[in-house]
Amino acid sequence: MIVNGTPYRTVWLDERTVCAIDQRRLPHTFTIARLSTHRETAAAIRDMLVRGAPCIGATAAYGLAQAALEAPDSGFASYVRAAEALLRATRPTAQNLFFALDRVMRVIGRAANPAEARAAAVTEANELADEDVAACKAIGDNGAPLLKDGMTVLTHCNAGWLATVDWGTALAPIYVAARNGVKLTVLADETRPRSQGSKLTAWELMQEGVDVQVIADNAAGFLLSRGEIDLCITGADRIAANGDVANKIGTYEKAVVAHANGVPFYVAAPRSTFDFACATGADIPIEERDQDEVLVVSGVDANGVPRDVMIAPAGARARNPAFDVTPARYIAGLVTDEGVFDADSRALSRLADAG
Amino acid sequence: MIVNGTPYRTVWLDERTVCAIDQRRLPHTFTIARLSTHRETAAAIRDMLVRGAPCIGATAAYGLAQAALEAPDSGFASYVRAAEALLRATRPTAQNLFFALDRVMRVIGRAANPAEARAAAVTEANELADEDVAACKAIGDNGAPLLKDGMTVLTHCNAGWLATVDWGTALAPIYVAARNGVKLTVLADETRPRSQGSKLTAWELMQEGVDVQVIADNAAGFLLSRGEIDLCITGADRIAANGDVANKIGTYEKAVVAHANGVPFYVAAPRSTFDFACATGADIPIEERDQDEVLVVSGVDANGVPRDVMIAPAGARARNPAFDVTPARYIAGLVTDEGVFDADSRALSRLADAG
Repeated sequence: MIVNGTPYRTVWLDERTVCAIDQRRLPHTFTIARLSTHRETAAAIRDMLVRGAPCIGATAAYGLAQAALEAPDSGFASYVRAAEALLRATRPTAQNLFFALDRVMRVIGRAANPAEARAAAVTEANELADEDVAACKAIGDNGAPLLKDGMTVLTHCNAGWLATVDWGTALAPIYVAARNGVKLTVLADETRPRSQGSKLTAWELMQEGVDVQVIADNAAGFLLSRGEIDLCITGADRIAANGDVANKIGTYEKAVVAHANGVPFYVAAPRSTFDFACATGADIPIEERDQDEVLVVSGVDANGVPRDVMIAPAGARARNPAFDVTPARYIAGLVTDEGVFDADSRALSRLADAG
Repeated sequence: MIVNGTPYRTVWLDERTVCAIDQRRLPHTFTIARLSTHRETAAAIRDMLVRGAPCIGATAAYGLAQAALEAPDSGFASYVRAAEALLRATRPTAQNLFFALDRVMRVIGRAANPAEARAAAVTEANELADEDVAACKAIGDNGAPLLKDGMTVLTHCNAGWLATVDWGTALAPIYVAARNGVKLTVLADETRPRSQGSKLTAWELMQEGVDVQVIADNAAGFLLSRGEIDLCITGADRIAANGDVANKIGTYEKAVVAHANGVPFYVAAPRSTFDFACATGADIPIEERDQDEVLVVSGVDANGVPRDVMIAPAGARARNPAFDVTPARYIAGLVTDEGVFDADSRALSRLADAG
């Protein structure tokens, strides 16, 4: 993707430094964070400087490669194992995090010596990032035929290129269709509490010249009931073997209401988001995050100065589950890099076998 | 209700001045707005200094009484008619607005001369406010038996005493139950875009000592799916003859998802919120408000200074429907001052006959 005329990925390795677009400062400021140790990279994942399951995976892979580069020859294995544990504990829900760490650990484990392990880790992290780009492009190609000229499409949270290394998942079909001349209007759910829809999805789509309007999360149901939405598509943080989908809090509500109104609800994700060891959504842990995400809103004032504002009474308490699980029966199809699959165990066993 | 040790109503008439709690400044600052002309009162309704259907009704009644007090003897009728038209045009959805204006206009029309009309208008507006208090208390008494010790109750927007003259609608049963020693936990949907749940409902319940936690609007579905919510109750802006309910945007989504999880969804409203001339919810006009309500969030900074922050990219657009319609089939019961009714035409014809 192009930002202000320059092509970017969301995350890359520059010698021993992990570079990443600082998503906490978007859409108001576009900056590249330079994370000089694997500990800084782990903190960046935990604090959501990067977010989105595939982007988290790629960042974690680079962080582990970075740890291998940092690790002394003596005690190499234990240093890397500690780094892996630190990175693994940053976020509990995203399947891609574990998938990416497993892959880099595997090549490190196979290496004959630390020097070989370092080189192999860097190569594997880069390959993982490249594969993510290719997978997202394939999701775009596979999903684009669902989108017809003149459609209004609802999306939730940000599953665009910022959530991946490039192209995105839910937004990839929209980008491919738009580049093919298909005219679409995208409604972006604000996606409280962190407002990734208004902050990131609107920004991405505006950069690409796709027509986008932000709506409060509460408005999706009304617009679905009035026939103003033709199709819904979101990303996923983890997909169970039966097609149940863990994704950003609120996805479940949208899927239930879309179903009640006969509007198809698609979920787009690369194969790495599928957890075939997880039988159903009930087995997916749901992260509860700090209550201040609900009680305090971040933005910029009229002068562009970043400000946090409290929107609740002093002393108010909040609950903040960050994800929910959408049962497979509400999902019209899973748009993957391997094709579009029904959200059921039988269809997904074919995807499992492809891996 | 008591605020900081003093009993208050949300709105009252002090000689020729309408006094109202300025709800735009809550929960951070508690101030009484003094509206010295009916034009200021109309602006206060339009700009949501007061909000909530019954509170809007009482404020409009006081505004029309105020217009009668302002009107010269010569041209009295046309002055009052123009004031009524101004007040009627402030908000399109709240049934109580029209109900209240009709009542005050009727007593003005019956008066023999302007002096009599002024006195009658003031008396009628005060009676309307007193009746609202009595109706809300009756809603509380009728609804309280639905609430059992240990329940967690979800509510949306603010249908508490701030939305009425006193007691509230959806929150009245909670206040009555709590005063009877029933222990409840209330989950308050934030209710974007204006965040009345975190700003007003949390504040009200905290003043009353009721356990309350704010949740992002997106979180209700997850908590319903996990069995963490026992009952939902909201207010209404207008209820059609068949039991369809127009209420704050997002109510429809919560009702659909509650229904999908077998959790009862109640709507509480006084008889004045029912529009028996309106056959179904499809006949209720839905107000679309300014896009800045979605794109800009108001709160206070760490020093308590009010701030507006932009949460979307510069130039972003938004849609902002302010209400939605919940079909009667999703509603477990309508809690009114006349008792709890099924949400269907046959049951509601009994309520219509009671008027």
